[in-house]
Amino acid sequence: MLLTSSCDCLRVSQVTREGKFMQSDVPRQLVYGTMVFVRQTIVADASCALSRAVCIATRYSAVRRQFGSQNGLETQVIDYKTQQSRLFPLMASAYAFRFVGEWLTWLYKDVTQRLQANDFSTLPEAHACTAGLKSLTTSATADGIEECRKLCGGHGYLCSSGLPELFAVYVPACTYEGDNFVLLLQVARFLMKTVSQLGSGKKPVGTVGYMGRIEHLMQCRCDVQRAEDWLKPSAILEAFEARAARMSVARAENLSKFANSEEGFAELSADLVEAAVAHCQLIIVSKFIEKVQQDIPGKGVKHQLEVLCNVYALFLLHKHQGEFLATSCITPKQASLANDQLRTLYSQVRPNAISLVDAFNYTDHYLGSILGRYDGNVYPKLYEAAWKDPLNDSVVPDGYHEYIRPILKQQLRTAKL
Amino acid sequence: MLLTSSCDCLRVSQVTREGKFMQSDVPRQLVYGTMVFVRQTIVADASCALSRAVCIATRYSAVRRQFGSQNGLETQVIDYKTQQSRLFPLMASAYAFRFVGEWLTWLYKDVTQRLQANDFSTLPEAHACTAGLKSLTTSATADGIEECRKLCGGHGYLCSSGLPELFAVYVPACTYEGDNFVLLLQVARFLMKTVSQLGSGKKPVGTVGYMGRIEHLMQCRCDVQRAEDWLKPSAILEAFEARAARMSVARAENLSKFANSEEGFAELSADLVEAAVAHCQLIIVSKFIEKVQQDIPGKGVKHQLEVLCNVYALFLLHKHQGEFLATSCITPKQASLANDQLRTLYSQVRPNAISLVDAFNYTDHYLGSILGRYDGNVYPKLYEAAWKDPLNDSVVPDGYHEYIRPILKQQLRTAKL
Repeated sequence: MLLTSSCDCLRVSQVTREGKFMQSDVPRQLVYGTMVFVRQTIVADASCALSRAVCIATRYSAVRRQFGSQNGLETQVIDYKTQQSRLFPLMASAYAFRFVGEWLTWLYKDVTQRLQANDFSTLPEAHACTAGLKSLTTSATADGIEECRKLCGGHGYLCSSGLPELFAVYVPACTYEGDNFVLLLQVARFLMKTVSQLGSGKKPVGTVGYMGRIEHLMQCRCDVQRAEDWLKPSAILEAFEARAARMSVARAENLSKFANSEEGFAELSADLVEAAVAHCQLIIVSKFIEKVQQDIPGKGVKHQLEVLCNVYALFLLHKHQGEFLATSCITPKQASLANDQLRTLYSQVRPNAISLVDAFNYTDHYLGSILGRYDGNVYPKLYEAAWKDPLNDSVVPDGYHEYIRPILKQQLRTAKL
Repeated sequence: MLLTSSCDCLRVSQVTREGKFMQSDVPRQLVYGTMVFVRQTIVADASCALSRAVCIATRYSAVRRQFGSQNGLETQVIDYKTQQSRLFPLMASAYAFRFVGEWLTWLYKDVTQRLQANDFSTLPEAHACTAGLKSLTTSATADGIEECRKLCGGHGYLCSSGLPELFAVYVPACTYEGDNFVLLLQVARFLMKTVSQLGSGKKPVGTVGYMGRIEHLMQCRCDVQRAEDWLKPSAILEAFEARAARMSVARAENLSKFANSEEGFAELSADLVEAAVAHCQLIIVSKFIEKVQQDIPGKGVKHQLEVLCNVYALFLLHKHQGEFLATSCITPKQASLANDQLRTLYSQVRPNAISLVDAFNYTDHYLGSILGRYDGNVYPKLYEAAWKDPLNDSVVPDGYHEYIRPILKQQLRTAKL
């Protein structure tokens, strides 16, 4: 379904008593400034919601034990690789969205200052970039909260886990302030325009700056030979840049085969969305890398963030390996090495997993989750909460003797006939 | 989180008064028979739940119009390629799950007859296959219902759309009767065993029958040269078989590098899950192909099902192209042709989309959705439903004058200071 933020534009427009729509005199660009602000807030909110869910799921994964040992205590589920491979990328995403959100705050200030100086030059790029980041972060967060619920097993479905409400309250973010698919189409439109202007001498700026190195990116070869080579920020960045650039260029070439470019855009829109996603993932990865290259206070904190940054990038690379391979940005062997390195990184996250979610500094009251309690005292508190359920006021629930039992008894009698 | 169906096994076991666990004398295999039955029911339910959501989203996508025309009526959102590329694969999945569910009913009967004749030979294969199909179909259905909700835009979030409740009631299926990830690990274990026995002369049967042609599948080359070549069932089947076989063999090779195979299994479990998914997708695709190769009554019905079968297969191929490419089952060019063919197929589904969901034959009462009404009279009925909301009993909601207005007024006064 297609819903856009066109409402923002409508606010300054008018409809006459005769029903005629009047475009306003206010420059359209100024309205985009507001959109940039709102979307920046949404990205920050995404990080907040995802980190809450991740905090709950991580703490409970350390409390919960199941299988894996013949003698003594069972294994903490956080030690299972399948659990880690689903949970740790979400943890890394929560950090990634936080850093890209901080950067968006800077971007909004920059845009505002330029607007005041009548400089509209960076607005299209800022608009496309915030549209794409709103889309990517809210979709990933909604899916991520639901995944955290599943990572808590059956207990994740309890209201007292806090996760069902978190999901239900969050998920509309995928639709409001611009449906996430429509926003990606706007990003794609901007990317196609950028590609079409590459020969014109107009230099791409900001988050499409990498397009300025298009000749290099179209023919570069990834030089990863061992799994550890994937830890180099330059290797990650070039692979993501090459993939995004090549996907955009390939889409632009396919578009050029259509006589009517609007028809082509409509026909190829699903492919264009993929190019937009690749571009937006590059933005988040590059902002994460920029962040961890800065000074970061606290002993060892920087290294932990580097590990999470690599988890985020290599998880995306593995998930979208088809696009990296189809565009020949990496070889199947290099894709396999990235996956090996990812496994190693999960082992490095594991000892600090609890600290990394404690660092979000959420109170138990704010988390609102028995599974995510700071003290880990989950089961006695779950039992207490169960007592508070009205269903447990009596041993036999109301209505059983009056309504349900007669039906069951009758059936039994029928069966005996 | 790890929850399994071990409860089924516990039912026939005992715990002594001293707290000692006593394994039962009942052959473990008989318990698996029950599991096969329950999981077969779950797969059939998945098709039912997904088809309800798809029916609602498809009908509303034909009713809803947005953008796309300067003069006259706006475009029906079902005509947008992005909408089609998200909706039609779900429609195809609903049909696919129905057919694989029908086949499972046959499988259960077959297993039961064999058990009565003391033939346990096919049970491990049947157990692995139903475990995997339960996992795949319930995960895809839960995600699919949520996607249908998003495909209805803002209206999808209304209770009266029927989708929020459908999702909330359905989603626990991903966790009960065997957590979906744990089930995939069981499938992977069976696949690794099958691969390890390939040299032993023991012929793989049933859904792992393709492993018997392992030498061919390890070196075959896909011969697709034009987009239409992807319509050949043989091309699709061989690509899916080769991908599943090569992924299993690659995992088995990686496992063999570990001195302790259980440690290896734990370490590589995330990769093993991917191999299990590839195997289960092959089962569903192959059962869909078998179905459409049978006689199907009704003029033109068979062709429509062939189109959906191809949509299902090529959608999966595109989504997992990384695995097809990494295992060299197909070339990047062939992956691109599959995507082109998929677009063409969407255009073929479009004219019959409404008929294809009407064919589920759900009453409006059963669907419980204003958006999915058979008569398409959505907006007047939504308006009627809104009137029934207690919030709309008065123009100004209860509590506004007493509580909210004073706060707002106070803030305004503060702002004026």
